[in-house]
Amino acid sequence: MTHTTTPTASFTERMAGLDEAAVRRLDRDHVFHSWSAQALIDPLPIARAEGSYFWDHAGKRYLDFSSQLVNINIGYQHPKVVAAIQEQAARLATIQPAFANDARSEAARLIAEVAPEGLDRVFFTNGGAEANENAIRMARLHTGRHKVLATYRSYHGATAGSITLTGDPRRWPSEPGQPGIVHFWGPYTYRSAFHSETEEQERERALAHLRDTLMVEGPHTVAAIILETVVGTNGILVPPEGYLQGVRAICDEFGIMLIADEVMAGFGRCGEWFAVDHWGVVPDLITFAKGVNSGYVPLGGVIISDPIADTFQERAYPGGLTYSGHPLACASAVASITAFHEEGIVDHARRLGADVIGPRLREIAAKHASVGDVRGLGVFWAVELVTNRETRDPLVPFNAAGDAAKPMAAFAAACKERGLWPFTHFNRTHVVPPCTTTAEEAEEGLAILDEALDVADTFTH
Amino acid sequence: MTHTTTPTASFTERMAGLDEAAVRRLDRDHVFHSWSAQALIDPLPIARAEGSYFWDHAGKRYLDFSSQLVNINIGYQHPKVVAAIQEQAARLATIQPAFANDARSEAARLIAEVAPEGLDRVFFTNGGAEANENAIRMARLHTGRHKVLATYRSYHGATAGSITLTGDPRRWPSEPGQPGIVHFWGPYTYRSAFHSETEEQERERALAHLRDTLMVEGPHTVAAIILETVVGTNGILVPPEGYLQGVRAICDEFGIMLIADEVMAGFGRCGEWFAVDHWGVVPDLITFAKGVNSGYVPLGGVIISDPIADTFQERAYPGGLTYSGHPLACASAVASITAFHEEGIVDHARRLGADVIGPRLREIAAKHASVGDVRGLGVFWAVELVTNRETRDPLVPFNAAGDAAKPMAAFAAACKERGLWPFTHFNRTHVVPPCTTTAEEAEEGLAILDEALDVADTFTH
Ligand SMILES: Cc1ncc(COP(=O)(O)O)c(C=O)c1O
Ligand SMILES: Cc1ncc(COP(=O)(O)O)c(C=O)c1O
Repeated sequence: MTHTTTPTASFTERMAGLDEAAVRRLDRDHVFHSWSAQALIDPLPIARAEGSYFWDHAGKRYLDFSSQLVNINIGYQHPKVVAAIQEQAARLATIQPAFANDARSEAARLIAEVAPEGLDRVFFTNGGAEANENAIRMARLHTGRHKVLATYRSYHGATAGSITLTGDPRRWPSEPGQPGIVHFWGPYTYRSAFHSETEEQERERALAHLRDTLMVEGPHTVAAIILETVVGTNGILVPPEGYLQGVRAICDEFGIMLIADEVMAGFGRCGEWFAVDHWGVVPDLITFAKGVNSGYVPLGGVIISDPIADTFQERAYPGGLTYSGHPLACASAVASITAFHEEGIVDHARRLGADVIGPRLREIAAKHASVGDVRGLGVFWAVELVTNRETRDPLVPFNAAGDAAKPMAAFAAACKERGLWPFTHFNRTHVVPPCTTTAEEAEEGLAILDEALDVADTFTH
Repeated sequence: MTHTTTPTASFTERMAGLDEAAVRRLDRDHVFHSWSAQALIDPLPIARAEGSYFWDHAGKRYLDFSSQLVNINIGYQHPKVVAAIQEQAARLATIQPAFANDARSEAARLIAEVAPEGLDRVFFTNGGAEANENAIRMARLHTGRHKVLATYRSYHGATAGSITLTGDPRRWPSEPGQPGIVHFWGPYTYRSAFHSETEEQERERALAHLRDTLMVEGPHTVAAIILETVVGTNGILVPPEGYLQGVRAICDEFGIMLIADEVMAGFGRCGEWFAVDHWGVVPDLITFAKGVNSGYVPLGGVIISDPIADTFQERAYPGGLTYSGHPLACASAVASITAFHEEGIVDHARRLGADVIGPRLREIAAKHASVGDVRGLGVFWAVELVTNRETRDPLVPFNAAGDAAKPMAAFAAACKERGLWPFTHFNRTHVVPPCTTTAEEAEEGLAILDEALDVADTFTH
């Protein structure tokens, strides 16, 4: 067929015909939203975004301390990434995984280049859940073992395998899940599962717990241990110094593959290319998504160590998806990683955390009775809210919803009123702005946070 | 951070620096390919594509009878879809699922508009596997039942849930899979599991088999029956008239949800918006991907009937993904569906099948001893190759690889030599060009197929 040449409205003109009311109405009539009771939500239509800010249709501006779902690492509408998408769309939007393609080759090279030594190959997916699905498949087939250990207080995605790996309440409605997945407790000094009083104790006890769990599970039955290098949504749990090195040593001792889920923690979020770099630990598989291209086009993947890749040299790897190595997505990753290099974005994120966010959050913590703990690195920080600093009782209960969650909702509303979009989960607010946020913008947001915490303070006793 | 204004090479200039050899080398060094033994493949670098053709770096042109992975329904580089991607990239590349957005609202409206009556809401995913994962989750929670019935000779994706639904050998290395999934046999008159000799017998016996399977599984334990409306990769198995209506009636009798996987069969492939329209059957859930936007940007989803959507009005739906309702993907769907309407692409696909592909394939079948069966509709056709028409022995064995698959490899090579890119699976070649293929292009490809079948004929006896 020849495409008609009848002039029709451009896409932009058509969209201009939809005002805020129409966007809302069509959303309510036709869009089914994730993780939600459809009648109890009122999704805010977003009109535009740039850098560290986004705007609603009324023109109200929000400074983004959430990076959407902690994925806009490079900020909104980065001109180089937008240009690459536009150029690749004109060159070749898509081609299937069995072919080779320049954007795909170059994206894989750039990712391997910043990955730890010995992780040289990339299996591309559309997002984080699929990345974890494939990582555990690779580990199982490589080791010939079946069991996978994952941590409580983790999120790994919502497909059957990834939701079973997940150690938070989002797993419950999807059980029974994939067989062979066992949960253990990771370190979390502020609310230690091991009654630790120091970081050193927490490290030793968490490693002893892992070793004990392996003992009773049978280490020779375990294909992989998967963990978020720094736990994201479930609390920005930065592991004590030495913990990840200890897990690596245990894996080596028993021939177990270490999978680092860096979907949220990677690509600058922790002030490093990969969070494992902070501890010099080399996993066997790294899963990524989000920050690789800031989600401008859906993209994720697995970075594969040479021994695991070798397993699939002569033997077919039994996994795939139609859009593996999607050229448009890969083009956006090429542009984004290149901009990270050219603009020193990883270093900037590290310094922003060390020089601005960390110090300022500690000041804020000292002022507010509701702040129980502050922790993080890079642009990956949690402020844990409590009703009482002595008892450490959380400001809202674990997995609270509806009325029980009101104190957190009141805090979030106070932020939004003042033009700050916060990330909240359970009794925490996370300070997770784009890696490109300036010191001035961070100060602006932290000042709002400071004010909004007065609201949280009213729930303390 | 302010973005540096240092002029750097545009993305296109950088890509121009990669010649074919570099693309190949980087691919071999860094790209891990799906479904493959990495050392045994030699991925062809693709340089560009337009309409029904793509070109390698040497300038060799291929007429595409595969639509890549049966997803380029609108043809390559459709100018309206490319423009919409470019425009949306400049407007707002991405925004998270909890917000509303004009491109997302409009895409959902356009999809609901062409879906069968009573399926009004869309849950967006990145691809087909995630769509099926979420469809079975919805069916389970809506019915409060756990079991799901799926067919042998099917493909539903490669995440833990979708690969367990899958009824082909790609499931085997990922077992044990998600619990509660049971396989049954669907209709396939040419190789009947029920020893049928006519389409009517096949319909009756396949329905009786399904009813018997439900009897022994306990129909009250079954949440859903999922099937590809027309089975795709596993053979373009067009169900006998009345079969789908019969399945619908059985589902209604027992309160079971009918899930139509239209990831491959939908959006024009069968000469209808949805393949179910061919039989006037209304499923409870339809899963889609591929043709919705021809994969220009990764996109898939579930179209949800009102009763199932109602289940999640006051109760949270426990599923999601970072890129659900991705604006860039939704923009490409808006442009693609609009172009389908404006250019009459669905009708064109139906006529191309009825007037050109079907008749010409039947002529070809009459000439070639290796052609055992020809079947299909729209731009969705299978040519089943045999060593002997009487015995119907397949040209290569089920799941053949390596030497055993040589006759099919020889046939495919003969097509490629002549500038036709075929889709082959087991002992079949599928004629699955873009919906926008012209009659002349189809004739051109079918003439090459005719010649290449001489090679297949040499393996008959
Ligand atoms: C650590 C981690 N892993 C995996 C995922 C799942 O990624 P996706 O939503 O792209 O499937 C997420 C998403 O938030 C995540 O934070
Ligand atoms: C019928 C069907 N369902 C599901 C899928 C999986 O889709 P995806 O590869 O986008 O995950 C496919 C892919 O070929 C398919 O053909």
